[in-house]
Amino acid sequence: MRSVKRLVAEGLGTAFLLAVVVGSGIMAEGLAGGNVAIALLANAIATGCGLTALILMFGAISGAHFNPVVSLSEAWQGNLPRNEVLPYIAIQIAGAFTGIAIAHSMFGEPVFFASEHVRTGWSQWWSEFVATFGLIAVIISTSRTRPGVTPFAVAAYITSAYWFTASTSFANPAVTLARAASNTFAGIRPADTLGFIAAQLAGALIATILFNWLYPATPASDVVASDEAN
Amino acid sequence: MRSVKRLVAEGLGTAFLLAVVVGSGIMAEGLAGGNVAIALLANAIATGCGLTALILMFGAISGAHFNPVVSLSEAWQGNLPRNEVLPYIAIQIAGAFTGIAIAHSMFGEPVFFASEHVRTGWSQWWSEFVATFGLIAVIISTSRTRPGVTPFAVAAYITSAYWFTASTSFANPAVTLARAASNTFAGIRPADTLGFIAAQLAGALIATILFNWLYPATPASDVVASDEAN
Amino acid sequence: MRSVKRLVAEGLGTAFLLAVVVGSGIMAEGLAGGNVAIALLANAIATGCGLTALILMFGAISGAHFNPVVSLSEAWQGNLPRNEVLPYIAIQIAGAFTGIAIAHSMFGEPVFFASEHVRTGWSQWWSEFVATFGLIAVIISTSRTRPGVTPFAVAAYITSAYWFTASTSFANPAVTLARAASNTFAGIRPADTLGFIAAQLAGALIATILFNWLYPATPASDVVASDEAN
Amino acid sequence: MRSVKRLVAEGLGTAFLLAVVVGSGIMAEGLAGGNVAIALLANAIATGCGLTALILMFGAISGAHFNPVVSLSEAWQGNLPRNEVLPYIAIQIAGAFTGIAIAHSMFGEPVFFASEHVRTGWSQWWSEFVATFGLIAVIISTSRTRPGVTPFAVAAYITSAYWFTASTSFANPAVTLARAASNTFAGIRPADTLGFIAAQLAGALIATILFNWLYPATPASDVVASDEAN
Repeated sequence: MRSVKRLVAEGLGTAFLLAVVVGSGIMAEGLAGGNVAIALLANAIATGCGLTALILMFGAISGAHFNPVVSLSEAWQGNLPRNEVLPYIAIQIAGAFTGIAIAHSMFGEPVFFASEHVRTGWSQWWSEFVATFGLIAVIISTSRTRPGVTPFAVAAYITSAYWFTASTSFANPAVTLARAASNTFAGIRPADTLGFIAAQLAGALIATILFNWLYPATPASDVVASDEAN
Repeated sequence: MRSVKRLVAEGLGTAFLLAVVVGSGIMAEGLAGGNVAIALLANAIATGCGLTALILMFGAISGAHFNPVVSLSEAWQGNLPRNEVLPYIAIQIAGAFTGIAIAHSMFGEPVFFASEHVRTGWSQWWSEFVATFGLIAVIISTSRTRPGVTPFAVAAYITSAYWFTASTSFANPAVTLARAASNTFAGIRPADTLGFIAAQLAGALIATILFNWLYPATPASDVVASDEAN
Repeated sequence: MRSVKRLVAEGLGTAFLLAVVVGSGIMAEGLAGGNVAIALLANAIATGCGLTALILMFGAISGAHFNPVVSLSEAWQGNLPRNEVLPYIAIQIAGAFTGIAIAHSMFGEPVFFASEHVRTGWSQWWSEFVATFGLIAVIISTSRTRPGVTPFAVAAYITSAYWFTASTSFANPAVTLARAASNTFAGIRPADTLGFIAAQLAGALIATILFNWLYPATPASDVVASDEAN
Repeated sequence: MRSVKRLVAEGLGTAFLLAVVVGSGIMAEGLAGGNVAIALLANAIATGCGLTALILMFGAISGAHFNPVVSLSEAWQGNLPRNEVLPYIAIQIAGAFTGIAIAHSMFGEPVFFASEHVRTGWSQWWSEFVATFGLIAVIISTSRTRPGVTPFAVAAYITSAYWFTASTSFANPAVTLARAASNTFAGIRPADTLGFIAAQLAGALIATILFNWLYPATPASDVVASDEAN
């Protein structure tokens, strides 16, 4: 039962995450009158606030990964049982597409429609490498020293990464695949997803190795427990 | 006396919430020079910040529901005595209309005037279902695992939901009724309130059932107490 | 020595607060290309963030009032010795004017120059009453139930109040007087300060009475200490 | 090994900080359609959010200075061993230039190219003095009374200081030097760096003296430990 709840939490959380990312993108582009900076600012703030709430909501059950590379990194570190990795990734991808469908249906768009938004080339791949490296770095470092702030640190990081990377920081293969099915502000051309996912895997791998060296797993007694939650 | 204070807190808090939502909507629309994205961004940030303060102010007394579906959900879960449900809802509605009147009087508008802002159709109702489902989900999940962060999680969620739902996330029947009396940025045509409220009730019901299964009520000793407050 | 440090903290904090409010107003108006909503959004975010930092910096020494009506309310509640009230108010006013001078000198403006910004009439006075009522309400309610969050609650409230009141929420007589000496975005015509201050005093008085009834002073043992700081 | 990790943390953190500042500046200017207020708002929010994450990530290892004047101030107070000062400063500068190169490579700019952005004169120097004074003041005051909030207080302060100082608050010699190698939104002409750094050193010195008087180092038992982390 416990593991069913974990999968429900991952699926529901990832669905909500995509509804937030894509829904706020549609709303922002529709209202911004062509000023893309205003649209991206609204999209980034909505994503950061939504992610804060979602990690706080589901962290205590499933860890609130919502992201295959996070699950892989956690499994590599021994924090996620290996036999849960594939179910986690499957439900994340299913949740992501569900979230896209929810966003589209709220805004009267087709359930799915292939994106024509070109996102390819070394600048974009390098951006995804940097974005995902940073995401895994935030998760490992804060969850090993001050886990109560992890939800806030991750959400703040992603809000920032929408702006400081050239790719607006997808940093998540499930999100990347699902956004290929959305020809809206947040979309990505299906053919371009492969390069994004490869870059994300590489960034996550390097960050996992480096930050496990920087922050070796410590006995629980060394962790600051005062504002810990998940 | 205790229950009088609880009702005063709910009434005052809901009044302030409406003053924030409607007042900042009037200010934002007046200054934005026609760019609705900027107006909604200001409205969302003002609402999120105001809600943070209001829940922190009144949570310790009344639970800071400010919302009939929250009170119904809490009563269903056994957290609010059944004989307080109707008084809570009555004072929330009275507070909401008072808040509208306060906002209007600050900005030199009529005390009440019926909104002509059309908000109807399946996209809108589905948006309200999603918005309210998420709101109840945030409240149940965080208050059962880490109650000290609930005010921040709820405020972050609402800030996000202004953007990711097509209806800008009313998610509150008292707010919906009162906003029908405001022909401003935040208004809703009186005839459209019924569909909104029905969708909100449905979303709250499903979320209450699902999240009580996901997060069964735990003995107090299992709750992280370190940053708990209300 | 202790009381000297308290006065230095109040003076320095109020100076920084005014530098933030007026400096960010000048910067925002200068860059916004005539879109007042963008200017006010930047001004509000800069003020909220700055206030968070300032209350966290000085709260442990002086209480971080930075505001004569806060000091009067605290003295009325027995939290500030009566013989410190006048020194507090004097240094707050001196600090406020110093802060204006600092902001002006950073932006190459005259040290002081009388504002021509008209802010008068019942809408404005009523707005200041509401704004100050809410400010005192936030301070009393959070500091009696969860003092560690007071800095965040106050800053969030003020960010919101810039938008939901017609006066952009001065809510502070020292700030009001000093802003009369700044003919910039944040200014107020000297002749209009009296009405603002009267409304602020009235709002603070009513809130102090009402919230002392709602939240009677409790023994320290009843206060949630876990995230308390000042 | 411990000291190697400290230097890796400072270098990596400073590199990420510059990637955030310069990357988000390029993105913001590119999208804002000439409205500098929107660009600076996005730049400030991205910087504040990124800084929150970075200090939470690296604080537990190295203190998360990312800034030579912070390291000098901490050494002066006895918090950083004197023989670590030069290595800290060296790695901060190297990290800062690396971060610039990362940002430029993500956005398809040359690795380094000298800025032509003129930032000189008394208004600018005075702004840098005020900005750095405030930064050191925030760090000393919060880390001596409530260290768990320092990351949030510093990030909030910098977000505010982007707006309330005429120089947009560099407040960091390593950042200043590196931004001279970026002819983008965030750049500074190489010839202008000397004045900035001199003002930063002066501001840091005065703040260190004043705030050590205001907040004498206290025994650990007097510090609020409940939300302390680094």
